Amino acid sequence: MNSKSAENWRDKISRLVEHRLFIHSVMIIILINAAIVGLETFQGIYQNNQSLFYMADRILLWIFTIEIALRIVGSKPFYSFFRGPWNWFDFLIVISGFIFTGAHFVTVLRVLRVLRILRAISFIPSLRRLVDALLMTIPALGNIMILMGIIFYIYAVIGTILYQHIAPEYFGSLGDSLLTLFQVVTLESWASNVMRPLLETSPSAWIYFVSFVLVGTFVIFNLFIGVIVNNVEKVDEMGMEQDSTLVSEKSSENEVKELRKEVQELKELLLDEKKHRSK
Amino acid sequence: MNSKSAENWRDKISRLVEHRLFIHSVMIIILINAAIVGLETFQGIYQNNQSLFYMADRILLWIFTIEIALRIVGSKPFYSFFRGPWNWFDFLIVISGFIFTGAHFVTVLRVLRVLRILRAISFIPSLRRLVDALLMTIPALGNIMILMGIIFYIYAVIGTILYQHIAPEYFGSLGDSLLTLFQVVTLESWASNVMRPLLETSPSAWIYFVSFVLVGTFVIFNLFIGVIVNNVEKVDEMGMEQDSTLVSEKSSENEVKELRKEVQELKELLLDEKKHRSK
Amino acid sequence: MNSKSAENWRDKISRLVEHRLFIHSVMIIILINAAIVGLETFQGIYQNNQSLFYMADRILLWIFTIEIALRIVGSKPFYSFFRGPWNWFDFLIVISGFIFTGAHFVTVLRVLRVLRILRAISFIPSLRRLVDALLMTIPALGNIMILMGIIFYIYAVIGTILYQHIAPEYFGSLGDSLLTLFQVVTLESWASNVMRPLLETSPSAWIYFVSFVLVGTFVIFNLFIGVIVNNVEKVDEMGMEQDSTLVSEKSSENEVKELRKEVQELKELLLDEKKHRSK
Amino acid sequence: MNSKSAENWRDKISRLVEHRLFIHSVMIIILINAAIVGLETFQGIYQNNQSLFYMADRILLWIFTIEIALRIVGSKPFYSFFRGPWNWFDFLIVISGFIFTGAHFVTVLRVLRVLRILRAISFIPSLRRLVDALLMTIPALGNIMILMGIIFYIYAVIGTILYQHIAPEYFGSLGDSLLTLFQVVTLESWASNVMRPLLETSPSAWIYFVSFVLVGTFVIFNLFIGVIVNNVEKVDEMGMEQDSTLVSEKSSENEVKELRKEVQELKELLLDEKKHRSK
Repeated sequence: MNSKSAENWRDKISRLVEHRLFIHSVMIIILINAAIVGLETFQGIYQNNQSLFYMADRILLWIFTIEIALRIVGSKPFYSFFRGPWNWFDFLIVISGFIFTGAHFVTVLRVLRVLRILRAISFIPSLRRLVDALLMTIPALGNIMILMGIIFYIYAVIGTILYQHIAPEYFGSLGDSLLTLFQVVTLESWASNVMRPLLETSPSAWIYFVSFVLVGTFVIFNLFIGVIVNNVEKVDEMGMEQDSTLVSEKSSENEVKELRKEVQELKELLLDEKKHRSK
Repeated sequence: MNSKSAENWRDKISRLVEHRLFIHSVMIIILINAAIVGLETFQGIYQNNQSLFYMADRILLWIFTIEIALRIVGSKPFYSFFRGPWNWFDFLIVISGFIFTGAHFVTVLRVLRVLRILRAISFIPSLRRLVDALLMTIPALGNIMILMGIIFYIYAVIGTILYQHIAPEYFGSLGDSLLTLFQVVTLESWASNVMRPLLETSPSAWIYFVSFVLVGTFVIFNLFIGVIVNNVEKVDEMGMEQDSTLVSEKSSENEVKELRKEVQELKELLLDEKKHRSK
Repeated sequence: MNSKSAENWRDKISRLVEHRLFIHSVMIIILINAAIVGLETFQGIYQNNQSLFYMADRILLWIFTIEIALRIVGSKPFYSFFRGPWNWFDFLIVISGFIFTGAHFVTVLRVLRVLRILRAISFIPSLRRLVDALLMTIPALGNIMILMGIIFYIYAVIGTILYQHIAPEYFGSLGDSLLTLFQVVTLESWASNVMRPLLETSPSAWIYFVSFVLVGTFVIFNLFIGVIVNNVEKVDEMGMEQDSTLVSEKSSENEVKELRKEVQELKELLLDEKKHRSK
Repeated sequence: MNSKSAENWRDKISRLVEHRLFIHSVMIIILINAAIVGLETFQGIYQNNQSLFYMADRILLWIFTIEIALRIVGSKPFYSFFRGPWNWFDFLIVISGFIFTGAHFVTVLRVLRVLRILRAISFIPSLRRLVDALLMTIPALGNIMILMGIIFYIYAVIGTILYQHIAPEYFGSLGDSLLTLFQVVTLESWASNVMRPLLETSPSAWIYFVSFVLVGTFVIFNLFIGVIVNNVEKVDEMGMEQDSTLVSEKSSENEVKELRKEVQELKELLLDEKKHRSK
């Protein structure tokens, strides 16, 4: 009896959590949270209402915690909640608000509060699907990513060896070199700020930069084309599935086959008759 | 009788407004308007002929007003004129010339006069169709725009929190941060001017910038691909509609079906005869 | 007889001009010309051999002139030579070498000599076809070019009106503004050099720049997509033509129709017989 | 007998070389090599362990040499090893480690050691296929590359002629000009650093730069589209091969043809009977 009432109780929560009003309310609270973190960036407003902002944040955190708790309780069994990656995402964003409490983590806490806006994505189904689709294209690019990684690493090591002492702000360490190469691959000031000052002491530096720009943009360019072709391919395949040609074709073929059977029966009938008569 | 003559009168205007000569004249006046606003930018010419330019502008404004008035009168019923968005566009551009009169709005007025050149788009059908087509691609990008908005907002708030005091010219307020992020997403001086000076006081700033460049360009890149795939899909669909395969297929199928019916009738005839004879 | 020998003489030239050896020789002379103009850029070499370079250039010019003359004489009728746009191109490049003679045009002459390298394009058939294909895509972009022109003109006039006195180096005149807008649309230093200094005196300048960057890149982006979709469409059409489905389909349909006719004949035969018997 | 045992011996090596454990071990050694060259870039670590790094490098080089030697011995006949371009690649990278020995080539040697990381590509089949695919797209771009080369050369010579003395750091020599043009085509600081300073002394320089940016980006843009269309074409072709429409179509047609034959036989039967009866 007790267990049954518990069941009912959880069923109710499950229904509550999936109710439009509940979802809309959470959505509005996410927007309020977004507005508050936006307002906090205005120095004047923040300084005068610091305690108000702190209170609002605590209230919002508790609302989110209760919401997540309800959703966990509402799912059967409990742990099924943690099957969806978006639920994990919601859970971690809310839980992190409790972990980094204390004066040392003020900035971390504020950034985490901002990340709660990302929950809007997990709440709008069309956005969630879009992000899922975007993330799904990443593994297909795995090999080209590894290749890009190898190219970056090789150029970074060579860059550090060659220009460590000439341009320490760009090639001082392996990390600096990687960052500089990322800047070069976005074509940002690669010549005016990075290469040209180097050319004065190392006149053959252009080989390093021009080859990297060519190789880097060529690989990115192919990455780009790969994704386009992949997508066009998918569209083509979908077009074929939707295409009723093959189905209709099949039915037409069956029609003809059955027709042939009937004509053969006809012939047999006639032959039969002929035999009959010739007797 | 009176109403009938009025009808005739409006019919005539309707015909006048759609006449090639009328449209060509308006087109030429739009070009004259374009030439005048261009000439006005030359300081020497403008200073010496200020009153002349003022008069020309008044005359052009009245010509445009009369033209719009004629087009409103010529449409049946009157309000049907306001059904087309391009008519609204023409109407507002002309009417605004009367609203902002006075010395305080000199610059506003001059800019509005320049915008009248845009009327060339509403007058050249192929251009109007092109702009319609361009604007039509925007709603399809709705979700990716919302996602981009969320990403921009989150990065802007985080940027303001972290770098407000270190780089006030770039991250001084939420608005500054949004503008800086727009600059970063166009890859303009994102490293040389924005990130590198920040790195000196905040060595981990590269995480913020590199992640934003990666996420931002990745989303724009997918927006790009989405539009291409959309368009290729449309082309494919159009190709299928033009394709007579399915239609021909259907007719072929029907042919076979009717053929089968006839063969069945034939069989019945033969069976009938057989029965008849066996009697 | 005299006219006939002339004919023979022109036939011989026609054959000579199309001979592989002749074409290869001209190609080599074009390459020599390219090498010479390249060598001339080296100050040391040029200063010491000025008269040698002058002589080489005169000789090359005369060789090209003779070559063009032979090709004109070899074509029947004479004026048919001027039907091909590439022949016009060759003719103008060579003839211009004679027009700008004299000390005043030294630089013009040197540049013209460089342009003779372009003749390599008209001599390599695959390159000529490529350039023809590239130029053919331009008229298809006509409308989007006009639209781009209108947008550039409007923004240039507004930019000149608003920022003429604040940033004279970028918006001093209509021409300066157009050049600056071209720079902005390539996203080169649009924020760091052009917009940011303006923001100090005109804080709302960001509307002008951000809107232009968005509109400009959006139009270019659509231009891009238009060309891609156009090309994919062409590929699809070619695919359809190669596709034998429709043809095969038609023949199949005809087969079924004729079959039906025969079955109808069969039925008539049987009915006829039945009637015959019932008598 | 001796030759047979040698055969066995080489067979064993051949099997060893293709064994998963052998390949995995080499892969790990390549990664260790990558880690070591990375560590060497850290000044502190390198200075204190110079002899250790030297020893590690010698050991790695000998391991690679033995590995290549085994692979050569294992292939039948010996020279078949040199048929694969990737084997050549491996061979040259390892052999070069022995050529540039000595104090004069310290930097060259260090760079070569870094290039050994590229062997990871030849060892991961999916990466090798990716690189093969990337390299395969290059010859298809041959013509557009030649065209790009001609454009670059012409603009470089003209640039050197016109701006050699005005902007020696950008157009001082043919080589400088080519490098500057490469920078311009990547749109990096083409206006702010290269063109604008030139405009002061040579006000018509914008023609040179704007035309080059337009021509250069237009050609690259077409190169891009060419590759996309090429790839889409390939996908379409593959789609058609997989498409069973044509096959099914054929069988349907044959069915109808055979059906018709049978109906004709039927008709003959009936006509035969009729004749028979009429007698």
